[in-house]
Amino acid sequence: MIVVMNSSATEENVKNVENIITSAGLHVHLSKGEETTIIGIVGDKTRVNTETLQAADGVEKIIQVTESYKLANRKFHPANTVIKVGGKDTDAVTIGGDQFVIMGGPCAVESYEEVKSAAECVKKSGAGMLRGGAYKPRTSPYSFQGLEEEGLKILHRVSRETGLPVISEVTSEEALKTAIPYLDMVQVGTRNMQNFALLKAVGKCGLPVMLKRGMAATIDEWLNAAEYILSSGNENVVLCERGIRTYETSTRNTLDISAVPVIKTKSHLPIIVDPSHASGVRAYIAPLSKAAAACGADGLMIETHPDPAKALSDGPQSLTFDMFENLCKDLTPLLSLQGRRL
Amino acid sequence: MIVVMNSSATEENVKNVENIITSAGLHVHLSKGEETTIIGIVGDKTRVNTETLQAADGVEKIIQVTESYKLANRKFHPANTVIKVGGKDTDAVTIGGDQFVIMGGPCAVESYEEVKSAAECVKKSGAGMLRGGAYKPRTSPYSFQGLEEEGLKILHRVSRETGLPVISEVTSEEALKTAIPYLDMVQVGTRNMQNFALLKAVGKCGLPVMLKRGMAATIDEWLNAAEYILSSGNENVVLCERGIRTYETSTRNTLDISAVPVIKTKSHLPIIVDPSHASGVRAYIAPLSKAAAACGADGLMIETHPDPAKALSDGPQSLTFDMFENLCKDLTPLLSLQGRRL
Amino acid sequence: MIVVMNSSATEENVKNVENIITSAGLHVHLSKGEETTIIGIVGDKTRVNTETLQAADGVEKIIQVTESYKLANRKFHPANTVIKVGGKDTDAVTIGGDQFVIMGGPCAVESYEEVKSAAECVKKSGAGMLRGGAYKPRTSPYSFQGLEEEGLKILHRVSRETGLPVISEVTSEEALKTAIPYLDMVQVGTRNMQNFALLKAVGKCGLPVMLKRGMAATIDEWLNAAEYILSSGNENVVLCERGIRTYETSTRNTLDISAVPVIKTKSHLPIIVDPSHASGVRAYIAPLSKAAAACGADGLMIETHPDPAKALSDGPQSLTFDMFENLCKDLTPLLSLQGRRL
Amino acid sequence: MIVVMNSSATEENVKNVENIITSAGLHVHLSKGEETTIIGIVGDKTRVNTETLQAADGVEKIIQVTESYKLANRKFHPANTVIKVGGKDTDAVTIGGDQFVIMGGPCAVESYEEVKSAAECVKKSGAGMLRGGAYKPRTSPYSFQGLEEEGLKILHRVSRETGLPVISEVTSEEALKTAIPYLDMVQVGTRNMQNFALLKAVGKCGLPVMLKRGMAATIDEWLNAAEYILSSGNENVVLCERGIRTYETSTRNTLDISAVPVIKTKSHLPIIVDPSHASGVRAYIAPLSKAAAACGADGLMIETHPDPAKALSDGPQSLTFDMFENLCKDLTPLLSLQGRRL
Repeated sequence: MIVVMNSSATEENVKNVENIITSAGLHVHLSKGEETTIIGIVGDKTRVNTETLQAADGVEKIIQVTESYKLANRKFHPANTVIKVGGKDTDAVTIGGDQFVIMGGPCAVESYEEVKSAAECVKKSGAGMLRGGAYKPRTSPYSFQGLEEEGLKILHRVSRETGLPVISEVTSEEALKTAIPYLDMVQVGTRNMQNFALLKAVGKCGLPVMLKRGMAATIDEWLNAAEYILSSGNENVVLCERGIRTYETSTRNTLDISAVPVIKTKSHLPIIVDPSHASGVRAYIAPLSKAAAACGADGLMIETHPDPAKALSDGPQSLTFDMFENLCKDLTPLLSLQGRRL
Repeated sequence: MIVVMNSSATEENVKNVENIITSAGLHVHLSKGEETTIIGIVGDKTRVNTETLQAADGVEKIIQVTESYKLANRKFHPANTVIKVGGKDTDAVTIGGDQFVIMGGPCAVESYEEVKSAAECVKKSGAGMLRGGAYKPRTSPYSFQGLEEEGLKILHRVSRETGLPVISEVTSEEALKTAIPYLDMVQVGTRNMQNFALLKAVGKCGLPVMLKRGMAATIDEWLNAAEYILSSGNENVVLCERGIRTYETSTRNTLDISAVPVIKTKSHLPIIVDPSHASGVRAYIAPLSKAAAACGADGLMIETHPDPAKALSDGPQSLTFDMFENLCKDLTPLLSLQGRRL
Repeated sequence: MIVVMNSSATEENVKNVENIITSAGLHVHLSKGEETTIIGIVGDKTRVNTETLQAADGVEKIIQVTESYKLANRKFHPANTVIKVGGKDTDAVTIGGDQFVIMGGPCAVESYEEVKSAAECVKKSGAGMLRGGAYKPRTSPYSFQGLEEEGLKILHRVSRETGLPVISEVTSEEALKTAIPYLDMVQVGTRNMQNFALLKAVGKCGLPVMLKRGMAATIDEWLNAAEYILSSGNENVVLCERGIRTYETSTRNTLDISAVPVIKTKSHLPIIVDPSHASGVRAYIAPLSKAAAACGADGLMIETHPDPAKALSDGPQSLTFDMFENLCKDLTPLLSLQGRRL
Repeated sequence: MIVVMNSSATEENVKNVENIITSAGLHVHLSKGEETTIIGIVGDKTRVNTETLQAADGVEKIIQVTESYKLANRKFHPANTVIKVGGKDTDAVTIGGDQFVIMGGPCAVESYEEVKSAAECVKKSGAGMLRGGAYKPRTSPYSFQGLEEEGLKILHRVSRETGLPVISEVTSEEALKTAIPYLDMVQVGTRNMQNFALLKAVGKCGLPVMLKRGMAATIDEWLNAAEYILSSGNENVVLCERGIRTYETSTRNTLDISAVPVIKTKSHLPIIVDPSHASGVRAYIAPLSKAAAACGADGLMIETHPDPAKALSDGPQSLTFDMFENLCKDLTPLLSLQGRRL
């Protein structure tokens, strides 16, 4: 951490800042420039309060040099984390290793038949996991909110029939409690990325967690949100990039593809990409999936539906089963160039 | 709602879309242009599924013409909503009418003495309400998370001693349950604007609610979030603009001052402004407060602290008591130009 | 300037960075933390190349502590700059002092009658300057591009008839050459904020310049753009905030009202606000104008048109003459609270 | 084009809008809903003024259904445009066909030796074109601005010696005039994407043009900027995505990878990607280049430098020659999966 004094800071101001730091048991490195004095802080920064420093007279700004997340940080955990999902009542899947996991299924669970047919397509295509929404966070209170526990039951049944591990979103602590017995992995959605009560709860839920990036979250905030889960005792966290909010309107969100190499550099956690929500347009899903695979993502989350035109939610961004199968086929040689497989 | 067909849509595609609409009991207005066919939908749009239409063959896009929020919409409720806060164990305050309410107090509750001195400054300055954070949503799990119930007790005690109605943020349903007996108004923070479980819960809590705008929420999403509260039975919702996320870094967020006249046009709900969180810089709070008052906001939420340099949270954006008093003084003649008073 | 080394930087990496700095004649302050080594640079930073440092092995990042603009910087020029416009063939106007200058007139010049009637409204309302577009930068090549020199002649004639100094946008060096004899002030528009050839040219044109903020320019980039003009020899630069690009769509752009106090802190140059382009909606112009006046802006640029419904360009954001007069009337007591006048 | 009336629009308001439309020789399709009346316009929309309609009483909004760009639009030109560069004094390269063109070279031209060694690396790696900056648009007037004509001479000489066609940025009409004899292709940079005078000039310059996306330009604005060049008579336009401005700071800009499939859908023009400027970080260039190739881009622009740590401009985002060669090697099998070659 570095404290930059402003150009009109007095000797006394500098002394005061030094005192704040040393009285917290830390050391100071003073650097007097012609225009500015800079005070470096050496030692365990959690012992000093940034805001106190920032508010001290004569301080222009505080610059954070080291990240506030530790457990999610590659600096202290250089090897890739590989997460195992399922394996007891279903096939075992690993995320973050050689396997490239595609999570396929309908945006919202509507019926057993719908989920079953989607799961069969997923299985046949070689994709590893089943997804489906039972609790749907919707902008308007008047939109379809999901089948809730009924939906979870359907997902669970189809998962056990097909052997595909299953993931679904939970939107509250109560939903989480209901969902645990039915799922192999839980998802925290973009609107809840900073619902810290929920993050702490999934940190104790015993299942692997997929944490979607908030709509306008920085990568730093995202890794700090992961840190809430990790520091609550759950090491099995997968990140999911799903597009960020920008001024551009030709896609629903802007897929931040750079997040893949950035996360790979800063963290040891696996990262997958959701091109369905990122683009909102069916025609863009295949090219964006290939981009994600080519730049090192560990998997994809893709919506597929027997009849997208009849889907109750997010139809336009769902692939038909044919499209889904073709995409998996097209990805295979691309993945093998990187030593990976479906 | 308007369905725009793409230029290669066939007669059959158009017929299919017409069928989807009419089979939902709605009427169709067809408009064939040289490049595009446009299908207008007449009737109650909640009966038709937008996504189904969007996914139909030949459809280029769906354009929403009317807003999905109804209870928050000025079209169906032309008069301003005026909300009463406190009045039993405290002074009565009204938001949305002639009174311009300033909610003052520390970012985070630290001690009785701190809150008491802040409340005395608020009272003396003529500002109407006391604020203070007991549950603090913090980016990092290692930052100070608030005194929780202990903090609520301090706020309650000071509120009853000074007569100032008190507002505080709740970050979960559990926190809400704990908080209700201590507060006169509850706040839903920016990170929880789309925590729909929490919105529904505050919709049933019996207290007026202040709903902060999400960090990257559109005004439309914000009004839909308010609709969750209103449609759960709570009519007493105040909106709070607190800055949105943009690329600009000289302020912590970008205060979207236009949100004030936009909300006044689209909705009957009161809107206040939080210049402390919007700017993150003490020196900008007074000018932004005046801007808010001049363009028609119904109040302000401002952080004040006996010694900002010692505050445990958000020190740099807190006003000293002198600054707070001077600001209230400066606002008075500005407000009277608009027929308002503190 | 501070060089932050990454956690795996070797002694040799640090030595190398020190050498780069000292061989440029600068001094080094070394600060070794537990995780990171930080190297402060003391002396004239223009002598060292940031990119060279950034690219050196072991460097994590370079942090700029001081601003790159000098002439525009309040640190080296504490007093407000007050700029005189007109005064020979027209009334004299000052920007940045007690006078609050409103520049009114049509978006695009269409005819003598149109400009004359607008100018009469401007004059009668007490607003100080006439504006009008002769060169119109339009997104599509098929939109009306302005009357060019013909438009300048109309503006000039009306200016001299009414005594109002006149400002108009120039979109190229050629347009600038044509425009100089007709104008009292030239405007560089938002799309040309980083057209450095044009900035250098207006820096030598002999007239005061109004520099609009780029659509997605940071305040730092904006002040650096002003620095191009100042360092080419022209001290008379007025900044104009006109809204930035964000994800919000209920206004055309997002008026960054905080830019007013930020600029007042960082620079001595005057700043005015353009609520017409910022909002794109007539109903929001009056409240935003009051916000600008209340938070310390030095003036406004507002579009007004005899019959906005017939305007060839930007009709929806133009005020009628009645609205313009009423706004000027409403602003007067607000300005006098701040010791200013129209 | 669709006119949406607001809910309080009168019969007379609707009639008035109909008159505006029919008096321009167009036809009207009226659609009266319960809440809103919608007026569809049939015919050549360039004959009616959007702003006039928008400003008419009772109008809520105008919705554009068809794009304003025609020559750049795939609807009217379904086949991919393939552009030939060089071929007289250099090798011939094609952009938009089977060949995947990588433009490599230093950010800024510094010396003959530097450019020559970079060109040899480019040639040896199988990349098709040489790039280098002679006119550098820099945020600060005190940064290195480029060697200008001297730099162009170096580029030209190296191009002819190696047979690589050469591209360089022009920042003004004057620079363009100077540059034409030295170059095989000209580049319009991000800061000049809406410098319409320059766009018209390159539209008449006789060389193929690469048009970079503006820092905060929508895809629609970008295609309209291309339309300025096309409608000035130059059909040889290549688009270049180079990252857009967002709130995220871990990369310099946010590479909008979706722009590749979006442009491929909306336009017939080739699109290449610049991962160097998009990310600003050397380590992210290879993964982003693969992403671009995998999702259908027609080429890349990548900075390479003999000794990035000594480069005068943009060192940290330049690849070393080894990295450049390895990247080209890695891309080859990925491209062949798509039937393309370097």
